[in-house]
Amino acid sequence: MAQTVRIALDAMGGDHGPEVVVPGAALALERHPDARFLIYGDEAVVRPVLERHPALLPVTELRHADVSIRMDEKPSQALRIGRNKSSMWLAIQAVRDDEADICVSAGNTGALMAMSMFCLKTLPEIDRPAIAAIWPTIRGESVVLDVGATIGADASHYVNLAVMGAAMARIVFDIEKPTVGLLNVGREEIKGIEAVKEAGRILREANLAGLDYRGFVEGDDLGKGTVDVVVTEGFTGNIALKTAEGTAKQIGEYLRAAMSRTWTAKLGYLLAKTAFDALRAKMDPSRANGGIFLGLDGLVIKSHGGADALGLASAIDIAYDMAHYDFMRTIRDMLDQIPAEASA
Amino acid sequence: MAQTVRIALDAMGGDHGPEVVVPGAALALERHPDARFLIYGDEAVVRPVLERHPALLPVTELRHADVSIRMDEKPSQALRIGRNKSSMWLAIQAVRDDEADICVSAGNTGALMAMSMFCLKTLPEIDRPAIAAIWPTIRGESVVLDVGATIGADASHYVNLAVMGAAMARIVFDIEKPTVGLLNVGREEIKGIEAVKEAGRILREANLAGLDYRGFVEGDDLGKGTVDVVVTEGFTGNIALKTAEGTAKQIGEYLRAAMSRTWTAKLGYLLAKTAFDALRAKMDPSRANGGIFLGLDGLVIKSHGGADALGLASAIDIAYDMAHYDFMRTIRDMLDQIPAEASA
Repeated sequence: MAQTVRIALDAMGGDHGPEVVVPGAALALERHPDARFLIYGDEAVVRPVLERHPALLPVTELRHADVSIRMDEKPSQALRIGRNKSSMWLAIQAVRDDEADICVSAGNTGALMAMSMFCLKTLPEIDRPAIAAIWPTIRGESVVLDVGATIGADASHYVNLAVMGAAMARIVFDIEKPTVGLLNVGREEIKGIEAVKEAGRILREANLAGLDYRGFVEGDDLGKGTVDVVVTEGFTGNIALKTAEGTAKQIGEYLRAAMSRTWTAKLGYLLAKTAFDALRAKMDPSRANGGIFLGLDGLVIKSHGGADALGLASAIDIAYDMAHYDFMRTIRDMLDQIPAEASA
Repeated sequence: MAQTVRIALDAMGGDHGPEVVVPGAALALERHPDARFLIYGDEAVVRPVLERHPALLPVTELRHADVSIRMDEKPSQALRIGRNKSSMWLAIQAVRDDEADICVSAGNTGALMAMSMFCLKTLPEIDRPAIAAIWPTIRGESVVLDVGATIGADASHYVNLAVMGAAMARIVFDIEKPTVGLLNVGREEIKGIEAVKEAGRILREANLAGLDYRGFVEGDDLGKGTVDVVVTEGFTGNIALKTAEGTAKQIGEYLRAAMSRTWTAKLGYLLAKTAFDALRAKMDPSRANGGIFLGLDGLVIKSHGGADALGLASAIDIAYDMAHYDFMRTIRDMLDQIPAEASA
């Protein structure tokens, strides 16, 4: 596939707006020279930043947008003031109108999801979209979904999540048949929520070609990387994600306090500084940055609002891969394989 | 209160049985010289271990039990084979018969909960019991409940959990009016599960004397220690707990790998070893050991199955405090304060 990948960027999203989005695009361009950018935002603000990155100029089109969506805007409010004219909406619309292959925004999640649903709609098989996270594990990385798009799920939604997550793992991790687990409170088949048990039965019996269903997994399997794809509904998934982030921060605090307590510890810290820097990088959420919106009729990626240029470039990396390897085709093919019974 | 605290121990529970339970009791006795023990188990196995701890002998009564409940026994099976004759059952029964103030077992959670419900029953106000965990935070410790007793909750169950958790924080942390938060996917009042929102409304309006309701908290607030008591239902709570444990292990692995990569890092590790040991102790689940069963008409504490003697002693410490400061009276008083509307 020699085709270029066209990426629509909402320059006004995130805590730092174009000051992070534009340098992020410049970094991503170094890694993917065939990327092309459509950048939406307040031209008076974005143009000067863009001109500091001459490599971007020949591959970027800057389009002015009158409205920027604030990070604390309510989704309904964002839709009212931003539809058809905000940088966020226009970046999504570029995907709908096939001017771009994927949209990336660091703007507020609720607004981005509401606008994406409104503008792109969901795929015919999917009632409710999901947000997938790439979760760092001891073995590498896993896809975890849903981390907060919708609350609650019935069995058929869990099955859809499993299929969408497997499609994503296939593209992003380049695994032919990703292993999939349903997040539960025990491994035994009799345990847990009724809908999860029913979804497990369907997945086991359907024996889908594109995924290898491994049964239930528990909270500690997330960090272990027991399976490539961990499936849960948005309430539990969001709480698990934030709990893990909070625990990582907490241990970072402990570590900092412990290493500054005595002079031998301080000296030890200096000697091991490279190791600590590597550890910090591994724990840094901006490395595994990007919530991927799944189930929509088009590709949208949410980058962390507080991400720096490196974090934004990571989100663009994922966006690039998903477009380059035609994720939309993979997910459509895999959704077609779900037996009718499962979507009853 | 000069009264002794009478603790019933299931010596056969846990991965190591009496080899951990008896030394754990000996450690706890050093800290609480007025503790008295009723130890249940296979006399032929427990007696020799007990005799290695002469300090325990004058304050301990060993009672023989024919049956030991295996760690993988199903709750229904455990009840069938162990009722009235297993060390686990007899230790719980000692609480029911007022021979002991509290029961501690490192045996399997499902069996212990099933037997506790069957033998002790729940308090009149409580339909479903809960398991509370003591969660290490940046600021100290919090009570988190329910971490896995029952799945799902309606608004009145959330309110009961809040009250029971506050009663526990009051005793264990010695805080007159603990702060309480409901675990949710956002701080705004419009977000999340209906029952959680309704519980929030009730708690805000009821303005109970024994707790300070602070609204919704998120997953990362657990590690921060934003509130003294975090309330959630058993499915989400269990997954959050195991996710945090898994993340801590994962970072431990990263750290070990990072510190052994170069010789300077290894040297740094040696110099900072004391600091690392302190950190490891802080991350060690056996320190904050013990799932506390709440809502039963009697006190039962579940110690971690894999805990060592130090871990078991920690669980006994909590047991001692809860009995010594009359937790059952506190929880009854606080449950009486819930307005009738809330338990509708």
